[in-house]
This record gives sequence, C-alpha cells and structure tokens, in this order.
Amino acid sequence: MAHSTPSLASAHAFDTVNPASVRQAIRKGYTGYTAGFSPGRVQANICILPKQYAEDFLLYCQRNPQPCPLLARSDAGDPMLTSLGTDIDIRTDVPLYHVFEHGELVAEVSDLRGYWRDDLVTFAMGCSFSFEEALIQDGLPLRFLDEGRVAGVYQTTLMTRAAGAFHAPLVVTMRPFTPADAIRAIQITSRFPGVHGAPVHFGDPSRIGVDLGVRYRDVGSGFVGEDEVPVFWACGLTPQLAAANAKPSLCITHAPSSMLVTDLRNSSLAVF
Amino acid sequence: MAHSTPSLASAHAFDTVNPASVRQAIRKGYTGYTAGFSPGRVQANICILPKQYAEDFLLYCQRNPQPCPLLARSDAGDPMLTSLGTDIDIRTDVPLYHVFEHGELVAEVSDLRGYWRDDLVTFAMGCSFSFEEALIQDGLPLRFLDEGRVAGVYQTTLMTRAAGAFHAPLVVTMRPFTPADAIRAIQITSRFPGVHGAPVHFGDPSRIGVDLGVRYRDVGSGFVGEDEVPVFWACGLTPQLAAANAKPSLCITHAPSSMLVTDLRNSSLAVF
Repeated sequence: MAHSTPSLASAHAFDTVNPASVRQAIRKGYTGYTAGFSPGRVQANICILPKQYAEDFLLYCQRNPQPCPLLARSDAGDPMLTSLGTDIDIRTDVPLYHVFEHGELVAEVSDLRGYWRDDLVTFAMGCSFSFEEALIQDGLPLRFLDEGRVAGVYQTTLMTRAAGAFHAPLVVTMRPFTPADAIRAIQITSRFPGVHGAPVHFGDPSRIGVDLGVRYRDVGSGFVGEDEVPVFWACGLTPQLAAANAKPSLCITHAPSSMLVTDLRNSSLAVF
Repeated sequence: MAHSTPSLASAHAFDTVNPASVRQAIRKGYTGYTAGFSPGRVQANICILPKQYAEDFLLYCQRNPQPCPLLARSDAGDPMLTSLGTDIDIRTDVPLYHVFEHGELVAEVSDLRGYWRDDLVTFAMGCSFSFEEALIQDGLPLRFLDEGRVAGVYQTTLMTRAAGAFHAPLVVTMRPFTPADAIRAIQITSRFPGVHGAPVHFGDPSRIGVDLGVRYRDVGSGFVGEDEVPVFWACGLTPQLAAANAKPSLCITHAPSSMLVTDLRNSSLAVF
C-alpha cells in the first residue's frame, strides 16, 4: 500500500524520478518511505513466502483479486523480478522489510541477503497509489494527501475467500468524496483492476462492519466532510493479514509505505 | 424515455422482435407502447422543431449531453432518418405523437403526414432503455420493471446549460440499488454515454432538490429499499421540458413510452 504526496520526494539527494536510480539509492542505504518517488510508475506491495506456502497464497490471490492484485510471482529461489523492471533484486531493492516468523514480527531489516533461501517465492501486488495518481490527474480532491496523511484503513466484517491456511477479513481504505466525485472515482478506478480496481462499498460504514472512528492499526485519515460519502476500496493489507493468520514459518513483507518501485507505468495497467 | 418489460410485448399479433416489422405494424395502426419491442435495439426519444429553433436546440443538446444524448438530426424537411435504420419515416413510424404549439399540448396523433412541413427538423436521442437492458443482462435488479412500472422521474434543482430560449432544470430517473450494485450500475452505464451514461447523483435526494415522494408528472416508482440508495440518471424528459419552456410555434414529440424503434443495436453504443 503506497500513499504518496509528490512533494515528499523533493528533499532527497538522489534522483527520485528515475525508478532505477531510486532502487540504486535504496541499495546504497536509503531506508525511508517511497511516497512520491518515480511519479507515474507502479509501486508494489511485497510478500515473500517459502515455497510450501506459495501455491495456497497464489490461490488466495486468485480468489481475491480486489485486495490481492498480483503483478508478478517469482520462481522459487530467484530474487530477480524481471517482469517488473531492469535488474530488480528483491533482496536489496525495498527500503525496509518486515520479517515474520509464525505470524509474529521478529525483525525490521533493510537487506534480505542474510535471509534469502532457495525456497523463497516473491509475490508483488499492485497498490492504490497507482489509482490515486489517476484520481489526482482528473482533479479529484484527496485532502488527506495535502495533510501528509494516507487514506483511512479499516477492517471490515466482509470475509475474503480462504485458500489453505490463508484467510482474513477484507481490509479497506476509505476516501471521502461528494456523490458526483464518487461516481467519477468509481469510473476511474474501474480502469485499474490491477491496483484494487473499483470500490467495494460506499455510504453507511456499518453495512461492512466499519466504525469510521476505529482505524486499522491507527492508519490514515477517517475524516468525511458534511457533503461527502465515504467510499471504500479493497486494501493490500488484506493479504498481509491473511499471511499473518496463516502463521507460516517465515513471511517477509515491505514495511508500510516502503514499497518496491518498479519500471512499470501506472498507465500501462489501465484496461480501457 | 423507454422503459421496458420484455413480457409486455408477447400479446401482440405482429412480429415484435424485428425492428422493421415493428415499424411496419406502427404504420398500419399500432398506437401503443414500444416497451419490450425489439430487444437489443435502440429506442429513441423524438423531438421535431421548425428550422428556426433547430440551431439552438442542437446547441442545447451539445451543452447537455447527459440528458440530451443526440443520436441523429435530420436535414430540414427530410422525414427519413437513414442513419438509424432502413426506411425509417418519422412521420409514420412512431406509435403516438404529442403536438405542442407555443408550449401547449394541442393534439395527440398517430400520423404526422398532415403536420409535415419543409422546415421541420427531427432530433432523435438515446434513452435509458438501452442501459436498462445492459443492467438486466448483468443481473442487477430493476424491481419496478417486474411490477410493470418505470423508474421514478423527478425534477431537480440542478440547472442545465441554456441555449437560446431552451432552458430547463435537469429531470432525472431514479433506480434504487444496494451500494455494491450501484457501483456496478455506474460501471455499466458509464459504457453508454449515448443513452444518458453514468448517473449524476446518488444518495441524499435533497442535495439535488428532490423529494422522493414528489414524482415529476407522477411517473414511475419512487420506492427505495432499506439496504438501498437512490441512484439518479439524467432523463430524456429534460429536453422535452426545455422545448416546452422555449414555447416554439410548433414542437412534436413522441408520446411517453411510445418510442421510435431503430435498427441500431444497444451494444453498438458501448464505448468500451
């Protein structure tokens, strides 16, 4: 889940526009957020699992494409993600990783070379930054970005379809819009099924078991203006929660807002 | 504005599927509704005006494409609408016409040959039946059709953009959906800008000046279920109201629900 204010990138000493330069800076030690880096390029959620869990996790993604829009899956043991860009090495090219053992966070590291094994499989999934860029380009207001915040995140009572040990309630992001802007936002995000696609709900939060005052992990802004309705999209934290619930012996993810910056263009994900 | 239950067509003695056969039956004297005739084909709203008003009305359509999705405009005096089908004669091929003089209804007739003049210009506009068919094909519920009713019609406080003497508040149709179905309905109708396209509003009717209990001309169903939100689309009665407000010396329209059945396929109007 990447959420971006383009202005955040301006303070850095390296080229924050070219995705290969961003990845090079990350290899050299940058461990911060990727928000605002490489405008127009896809940033990806990452989940790395031992091969014994990979088939079920792939099935979980296939069964739940809105929260788990799979962009790439590596071969076991291969750290390169050639379909996402030039010379992408998943062991070094994400600023910060979270390492989980049996569902518990055990380490936060900036380099996976010490953890890499021949049986690890990498899953890269689309994130909402791509469609937020399209919303911004269309002139729709995302006030939380202006405030340096991200979209509010909520756990719903909607269940995803389980696969093996992977199961979780749907986690969603919320963005407030006037009805007219919500209609436009539905049109725009429908073009991007590879990055969560259309919303799953709008209006009364209680219908999906959400209280706007109770954010998941306290993430993001829950503010909804008087003339607005909350609009809810499936969120990439859902597969992370499903992976935590499965309690695999090892699971490695990107740290929140520290994403893999790919060479893919957001516009290449539009289906029409 | 055509609203259709396919079952309504079954009682007729003529071929209600082939559009040329339908028009032939109308020429021979059928004066009823066209609802359910020629499934898959576009039915059109009709507005006929003297040439002196035609430029402003064309501009009104251009400025308000959602309520006035223009499919065809004839040359002055030419009763044939060749771009909409084979041998379509606007003087005889609509079941029932309303004739207005200076904004007042003066006659309801089944044949315009006695009214035809060399300066008359025909405007044919898309209607919501085309997108209702797409909604039904996708499995979305339109309960009012099952009840033999049409979508509720409402006059809003949203103003259309005037052109010359043509001006009117936006008239809308309302269809109730659950939020998830509303999102799908927005996607589907967005594909059909030539037949009103995406909704203009959903949710709180008062934001567009609508009281669901007060229907325009008492037309249609205003029922909204407990789990549903009202969704509002621009309606083809808007240009009829604009024409009435302009009080042209002569204006001829189709009678409600007695439309021009064209050869065009609804699917040909989909933009993606």
